[in-house]
Amino acid sequence: MASVLILMGSQSDWPVMQNAATMLNDLGVSWEARVVSAHRTPDLLPTTMKEAEQNDVQVVIAGAGGAAHLPGMLAAFTHLPVLGVPVPSKQLKGLDSLLSIVQMPKGVAVGTMAIGEAGAANAGLLAAQIVGTTNPDVQHNVQEFRANQRETVIANSTLELDL
Amino acid sequence: MASVLILMGSQSDWPVMQNAATMLNDLGVSWEARVVSAHRTPDLLPTTMKEAEQNDVQVVIAGAGGAAHLPGMLAAFTHLPVLGVPVPSKQLKGLDSLLSIVQMPKGVAVGTMAIGEAGAANAGLLAAQIVGTTNPDVQHNVQEFRANQRETVIANSTLELDL
Amino acid sequence: MASVLILMGSQSDWPVMQNAATMLNDLGVSWEARVVSAHRTPDLLPTTMKEAEQNDVQVVIAGAGGAAHLPGMLAAFTHLPVLGVPVPSKQLKGLDSLLSIVQMPKGVAVGTMAIGEAGAANAGLLAAQIVGTTNPDVQHNVQEFRANQRETVIANSTLELDL
Amino acid sequence: MASVLILMGSQSDWPVMQNAATMLNDLGVSWEARVVSAHRTPDLLPTTMKEAEQNDVQVVIAGAGGAAHLPGMLAAFTHLPVLGVPVPSKQLKGLDSLLSIVQMPKGVAVGTMAIGEAGAANAGLLAAQIVGTTNPDVQHNVQEFRANQRETVIANSTLELDL
Amino acid sequence: MASVLILMGSQSDWPVMQNAATMLNDLGVSWEARVVSAHRTPDLLPTTMKEAEQNDVQVVIAGAGGAAHLPGMLAAFTHLPVLGVPVPSKQLKGLDSLLSIVQMPKGVAVGTMAIGEAGAANAGLLAAQIVGTTNPDVQHNVQEFRANQRETVIANSTLELDL
Amino acid sequence: MASVLILMGSQSDWPVMQNAATMLNDLGVSWEARVVSAHRTPDLLPTTMKEAEQNDVQVVIAGAGGAAHLPGMLAAFTHLPVLGVPVPSKQLKGLDSLLSIVQMPKGVAVGTMAIGEAGAANAGLLAAQIVGTTNPDVQHNVQEFRANQRETVIANSTLELDL
Amino acid sequence: MASVLILMGSQSDWPVMQNAATMLNDLGVSWEARVVSAHRTPDLLPTTMKEAEQNDVQVVIAGAGGAAHLPGMLAAFTHLPVLGVPVPSKQLKGLDSLLSIVQMPKGVAVGTMAIGEAGAANAGLLAAQIVGTTNPDVQHNVQEFRANQRETVIANSTLELDL
Amino acid sequence: MASVLILMGSQSDWPVMQNAATMLNDLGVSWEARVVSAHRTPDLLPTTMKEAEQNDVQVVIAGAGGAAHLPGMLAAFTHLPVLGVPVPSKQLKGLDSLLSIVQMPKGVAVGTMAIGEAGAANAGLLAAQIVGTTNPDVQHNVQEFRANQRETVIANSTLELDL
Repeated sequence: MASVLILMGSQSDWPVMQNAATMLNDLGVSWEARVVSAHRTPDLLPTTMKEAEQNDVQVVIAGAGGAAHLPGMLAAFTHLPVLGVPVPSKQLKGLDSLLSIVQMPKGVAVGTMAIGEAGAANAGLLAAQIVGTTNPDVQHNVQEFRANQRETVIANSTLELDL
Repeated sequence: MASVLILMGSQSDWPVMQNAATMLNDLGVSWEARVVSAHRTPDLLPTTMKEAEQNDVQVVIAGAGGAAHLPGMLAAFTHLPVLGVPVPSKQLKGLDSLLSIVQMPKGVAVGTMAIGEAGAANAGLLAAQIVGTTNPDVQHNVQEFRANQRETVIANSTLELDL
Repeated sequence: MASVLILMGSQSDWPVMQNAATMLNDLGVSWEARVVSAHRTPDLLPTTMKEAEQNDVQVVIAGAGGAAHLPGMLAAFTHLPVLGVPVPSKQLKGLDSLLSIVQMPKGVAVGTMAIGEAGAANAGLLAAQIVGTTNPDVQHNVQEFRANQRETVIANSTLELDL
Repeated sequence: MASVLILMGSQSDWPVMQNAATMLNDLGVSWEARVVSAHRTPDLLPTTMKEAEQNDVQVVIAGAGGAAHLPGMLAAFTHLPVLGVPVPSKQLKGLDSLLSIVQMPKGVAVGTMAIGEAGAANAGLLAAQIVGTTNPDVQHNVQEFRANQRETVIANSTLELDL
Repeated sequence: MASVLILMGSQSDWPVMQNAATMLNDLGVSWEARVVSAHRTPDLLPTTMKEAEQNDVQVVIAGAGGAAHLPGMLAAFTHLPVLGVPVPSKQLKGLDSLLSIVQMPKGVAVGTMAIGEAGAANAGLLAAQIVGTTNPDVQHNVQEFRANQRETVIANSTLELDL
Repeated sequence: MASVLILMGSQSDWPVMQNAATMLNDLGVSWEARVVSAHRTPDLLPTTMKEAEQNDVQVVIAGAGGAAHLPGMLAAFTHLPVLGVPVPSKQLKGLDSLLSIVQMPKGVAVGTMAIGEAGAANAGLLAAQIVGTTNPDVQHNVQEFRANQRETVIANSTLELDL
Repeated sequence: MASVLILMGSQSDWPVMQNAATMLNDLGVSWEARVVSAHRTPDLLPTTMKEAEQNDVQVVIAGAGGAAHLPGMLAAFTHLPVLGVPVPSKQLKGLDSLLSIVQMPKGVAVGTMAIGEAGAANAGLLAAQIVGTTNPDVQHNVQEFRANQRETVIANSTLELDL
Repeated sequence: MASVLILMGSQSDWPVMQNAATMLNDLGVSWEARVVSAHRTPDLLPTTMKEAEQNDVQVVIAGAGGAAHLPGMLAAFTHLPVLGVPVPSKQLKGLDSLLSIVQMPKGVAVGTMAIGEAGAANAGLLAAQIVGTTNPDVQHNVQEFRANQRETVIANSTLELDL
């Protein structure tokens, strides 16, 4: 299995969650993605987490929207670090997703990211930073990504800022 | 087992959730209460629901606070109707609990009650109303409860309303 | 009359509320739909509930938006279980509808669903679960619906999850 | 009957609602107060409004908390102007009360005041202003109240504003 | 001058505020509309209110968005009843407008309506109800409006409610 | 007159607003405080601003709570920079005060500070920074305040951080 | 360097932030704009502020969205007055940006403007008012801008306000 | 240095943040705590992160309240994984802290925990899970903690749940 397992509650979450995959690609971290629904396939949660542990997955990224139970329930079934991405909901714009993911009770933890695409990308980045704590290549890639990002801002810092 | 199974994520939810039990007592419906945590004992969710189905439980009432996943996850494991009670959280006053319980995606349903004690009492009432759809005694008790409640309001409608 | 009575405050709520009807159709539960406005036809509330009780309706589903008083007022006039669906409002996106429906005081209960279409579909599902507590055919349909839903997720769990 | 009828959903609303009564006393407008519950005594709503119309009540003030349906339902049963006071709720601090009262659909109107005691006092004041549109004495009292209020601010404008 | 004076902070508020004017037309109440800005023409507030009082205006309707100060400031300058309409704002959807209008301190009152077009229409309706407290013709028109509204709901109560 | 004029809607705002005065004292900027109510003494707003302009006030600090109109209305009457402090409200905790102050329409500006005491202190600080743009002594005091603040943090950075 | 330095976290903030530049142009105040990211180029924050201080910048305007740290961090590095503009965010509409900017702790101050374009324009206006405290020409321009704005409202106050 | 560095914006955050330290103690992970303020000691941010990287810190935990910039700014200066804890604020109860920490833009990531004590404890737990990805002893401790936690719930699941 890959270093990072990306799970989401529904196929429709992929346009958001693929930002995590793209970031992991950019940082040289292997990933695998799958739909697992906390509510529609609850029995798959423990087996998926067991499988991940046995196959040396290092970080789990989980995205869900509305009453978003997937990240917290996955965390309940594993000792692997779980990062949660609040997928925007139609009416409440992901505020419900965010609170459902972040407000975990003491004893089971989810590292929660921003609502939507930026949050998914950052889940990929934080997963890489975690992998990078013991993998110098990935750590180097993170540093380079940051340096490039800095250069891009500086290179364009006054671009088209006129009236 | 009793007609109604009252579950909650933590012993500390009982001061809220006991309002459901009291209401069920008042309406002549048997109940049983237990702590089951979505996050700390996730493996007990399917077994608890299986046991409830086999023992003729008719309604499940579940209370939880914060990232409140218990009602929705129980609903995922049973065909029995599940009512959810948002337990007030320390900082966000149960707004997080409410959104985590009520905003369920299509396909798994939770009938959500008001935040806190009134919601717990009403979960007991609604459970009795559900039992009452096929149990004339309980239906009668609900009607009587409502009639008494109406009489009490009328009897005191101008009591002490002076300056 | 049908097993489930679907009421709504305005014709314009039907695009949302028809999701309840579709779900009930899928689960083999008969339904009937009608517009009754808490504010524009308040006198019809008690008569509609009386009629529902006399015609063996088992569950009432009520949808309304904004200052959504219909579900709570119907519940005030009947001993039948009432499920409320918050219809999205133009500006506040149904947060007003949700709070107006769910925050009922002790003594009159409404089982509240998610805002919008998913909530309406789940109102149909929960109504079927309630009917199913004493109707084995409907209970079987609910179980099958859940099983199919699970299969669909699993069959497509890695579908198109690539970059 | 008095010029202004003050109604509230529960005896426990009186500490808030009595601020309306005090203001009306101060402005020389007669009032009468009563508990009528939208949910526990729904059948009293139309009769209370009919009685008010027949006894020359000019303004109805209604206070309620949580899923606060009383003001809107009273407005549905009368052509008299109805002012609504959101009573603070335990958890959501009256935000639910406010949205439940103010977000009325087109066709039935409630003039909504601030949450809590200030809102109740201002309901009394606005009722007096309405009475004052055709009653010169009351209009004069309102003007005097305002003038006194202004004088009090000015007289104390630098009082104790030191460190 | 007309019976009702409709004021708003900006020409761009008219698409919302004209719903008040239409309602007043339907109920046979004369009106006049004007742009007066609390922030851009603050000196016009007292003169406009003085003029209104001297010309027998009975009710002032004021609409504004964002930090909506117009209704409250007009109320500060007159003894006439003032109704406030929260105009939807671009980002916060009128929640800011609503709180800025409704949360008035004790001593100066604004009867606040729903956010947006429904609120503006209801401001017209409530103004007519106020005028109707002493004008039997207008009161009759309000009653007829309500009766027609009821008939329309009933006539169409099952219209097109099929799948 | 002093360099900074501190205005507030009510004597009861002083416990919050005096934090601005204390900060100004610490930074060597003269101030004067007064109660002026947007709603109870609206006629004093233009005269107070005129007086301030004529007496070389450089910055106006205004605090108010709830439907907090004072800062915006003062800004409407002067070309002096106005800083607004949202005073905490009883129920909504100053969220209403904040939105009422900060969401000003284009053309009249208020520099808004944090809710409550920290916001009032920072209003004093920002006023001093503004005065300091042309007063080297005050600028020096601001720099020293910042340096001291930094030293205090560093000196205590591990103080008592044990279990 | 110019009198006012406009900084923003991303090129994509310019459509909002250029409203500050336009306003400054209209009021005869020189400005310069640049992209500096709190998160992507954090090391540029102190150097940019040092440079601004040395080049007689009088006011810094900073816009950012989401977890908007730029205004507060710039303020931490300078004694110049900093005005913050909450740029609307995709999901939460700038409520996150607003709270991230305005809720500064005691000791480092940001004068916060409205969310979005109006806020950016007003940041330009308030900056001009600050410059105007010691520059009579700019003060005169502000007064004229206000007078023109007033005239425009009055000239069009009844324009097209018909049905 | 220790495996985990706990930073906070103020000494007053320790009662919340010490829950992270306690959890790390329980899980056998070394930690060190320090006050570093994003706003009062901004120059210490890069040096503190550099020092942490050079001393083999594996995870940074940062807590802050209000406009909580510390976690995001630390993340901007390091490739180490940063976990953020929203410390409750006085008025907005940590909703401002949460949004200021979690809504990071793409490119700099913070894994955000729940508001308050539970969030701090879970930051310690998640840090241990991250350390545990390559440290079998810590991983074992996490598993044991979870197992004990599960046992405690089960052992007490019906304790005192009576009326």
